[in-house]
Amino acid sequence: MKAVSIKEPGGPEVLEWVEAEDPSPGPGEVVVDVVASALNRADVMQRQGLYPLPPGTSPYPGLEVSGRIGALGEGVTGWQVGDEVCALLTGGGYAQKVAVPAGQLLTVPEGVGLVEAAGLPEVTATVWSNIVMTAGLKAGETLLVHGGVGGVGTMAIQIAKALGARVVTTVGGPGRAARARELGADEAIDHRTDDFAKHGPYDVILDVIGGDYLERNVRSLAADGRLVVIGLQKGLEGSLNLAEIVFKRVSVHGTTLRTRSKEQKAEIVAEVQKNVWPLIENGSVRLVVDRTVSMADAAEGHRLMEAGGHVGKILLLNDESASGESASDGSASDGSASGGSASGEAAEHRHG
Amino acid sequence: MKAVSIKEPGGPEVLEWVEAEDPSPGPGEVVVDVVASALNRADVMQRQGLYPLPPGTSPYPGLEVSGRIGALGEGVTGWQVGDEVCALLTGGGYAQKVAVPAGQLLTVPEGVGLVEAAGLPEVTATVWSNIVMTAGLKAGETLLVHGGVGGVGTMAIQIAKALGARVVTTVGGPGRAARARELGADEAIDHRTDDFAKHGPYDVILDVIGGDYLERNVRSLAADGRLVVIGLQKGLEGSLNLAEIVFKRVSVHGTTLRTRSKEQKAEIVAEVQKNVWPLIENGSVRLVVDRTVSMADAAEGHRLMEAGGHVGKILLLNDESASGESASDGSASDGSASGGSASGEAAEHRHG
Repeated sequence: MKAVSIKEPGGPEVLEWVEAEDPSPGPGEVVVDVVASALNRADVMQRQGLYPLPPGTSPYPGLEVSGRIGALGEGVTGWQVGDEVCALLTGGGYAQKVAVPAGQLLTVPEGVGLVEAAGLPEVTATVWSNIVMTAGLKAGETLLVHGGVGGVGTMAIQIAKALGARVVTTVGGPGRAARARELGADEAIDHRTDDFAKHGPYDVILDVIGGDYLERNVRSLAADGRLVVIGLQKGLEGSLNLAEIVFKRVSVHGTTLRTRSKEQKAEIVAEVQKNVWPLIENGSVRLVVDRTVSMADAAEGHRLMEAGGHVGKILLLNDESASGESASDGSASDGSASGGSASGEAAEHRHG
Repeated sequence: MKAVSIKEPGGPEVLEWVEAEDPSPGPGEVVVDVVASALNRADVMQRQGLYPLPPGTSPYPGLEVSGRIGALGEGVTGWQVGDEVCALLTGGGYAQKVAVPAGQLLTVPEGVGLVEAAGLPEVTATVWSNIVMTAGLKAGETLLVHGGVGGVGTMAIQIAKALGARVVTTVGGPGRAARARELGADEAIDHRTDDFAKHGPYDVILDVIGGDYLERNVRSLAADGRLVVIGLQKGLEGSLNLAEIVFKRVSVHGTTLRTRSKEQKAEIVAEVQKNVWPLIENGSVRLVVDRTVSMADAAEGHRLMEAGGHVGKILLLNDESASGESASDGSASDGSASGGSASGEAAEHRHG
């Protein structure tokens, strides 16, 4: 097979499309013949050498794929060779084949194309595990999500609205504010000109920023509020007013999906299949895709993500497998699945 | 009735035993004829003017009492005038009578004297709500509790051991370390000569210290660890390493009982009655009482607490009501219920 290798820590140019050894399925695992993968912010950190990889992780980046099951390991039940699936990975998704524990497999939701499905596992698992399983967001509560037009943000807005929450989001610029409102946000705050802390209080905050946002996040939480930090785009250290968290009874949670055990990932994936897939299948939640680029050109995807102009997910297509995909794949209908549209407009894929 | 009034913010000498208006029970409340109350660290902060009181709180300090129901308000069912009870309060316990929502009443556990019962509600509700309801401590996990011979610490050690957890505690000095081990602590670390962070990792930390303990607490948590901050004896600000909480999937919770709603308090009290009272009645958990002083001399109790030499709870006896108590009260058997023992040794009350 071929895979995207990180030659050395550095810029997008260190990503190389190279020959690599085919994986074989361990006990309880399947090998997926990959149709597509998708970019996540953690891939950029991994490329830069800034992400401490859990032991045993594939050297190739990529936290999610879609494709067809190519081989079953010992003891796998409930899945067959040829099944169309998507999967949450600890790594190795930027490749033509990947081995994954069967507990991390999901079906492809009805109405979603196989290419597009590559962008679902990480973002749905991240949003559901954090806003529901960790923070316990309830109908009628207010969620603040930072970065409302990113991959996580676009999904968080929709899932939270489907749960009956009020959603406030921060974005950079009026155009992106309008996009966030289209996705269902009740309020979209332009962080360049306004302070989100003035618009609180919030019951739950989902934060991908870190750094000095910590103090403002905590200050703007309601009594019994919960802050979940899942990203550190603006720094690793913050100061915490303990009196504020004690008297307001606030909790601050840090989480990552990737470092979780196989058992924890399987639990989250099962909850996502049970709770989020029906929302996708009934049309109340959809994946927002910015564009699709060729997996061999992953570097271009990383450049786009770092430039920060994207709205929603950037997908990576395994061109070799995908020659037969475009006809059957919903996401190909507006042309973006053929890769590399230079349009600044987000290509959205509505289903159901 | 008489009550302890805070003349002005200041030292123990501002506490005065004064004539006060009798409370009457509002809808859903009862009035308790108080036999005893007990000291909590928050009382000292309140006396110093450092504790922001929830709106509607009694001006008199005191977060718990024992006694007999003297009057029932409208709509109270399941309790009768004359019932022996103890109660979790938002304030007003340093008084001969106090009104309390019926949801905050507890029975007096079998085998526990009515005076001693005054020391149970706050400490059991604090420990159970934090280590179980908030932090989800499970059998086989390790709990670190700071201040192992304080009121909260002595109860946390015993409840956590009864749950099947391993318990590590910090104390000041070898004598107190020995006392903590007697209560069941698997390890007692003298914070004057040793660093608790070297003895981790801990799954759950219950912290009454705050300030610069925050950084060390977070550093010594295990993956998926939970820190619950309930006191701020050493400062209100701390710095938080966000990368550490994200990659270890750690949560930091601040809580107070006092600022919770009536409904939340009732929920906690019901859980305590259901889960902790049986542990007291079967002898696996007991209240550690340092000594009992006269309520009229609450200032002396505050001096003792601030001096920091106590082990377990300091009780306040309403001498007027208690004239008839000592015979029937278990805690009187070693003389401490008669008030003001100057012995530095803790008087312990074993039951069951």
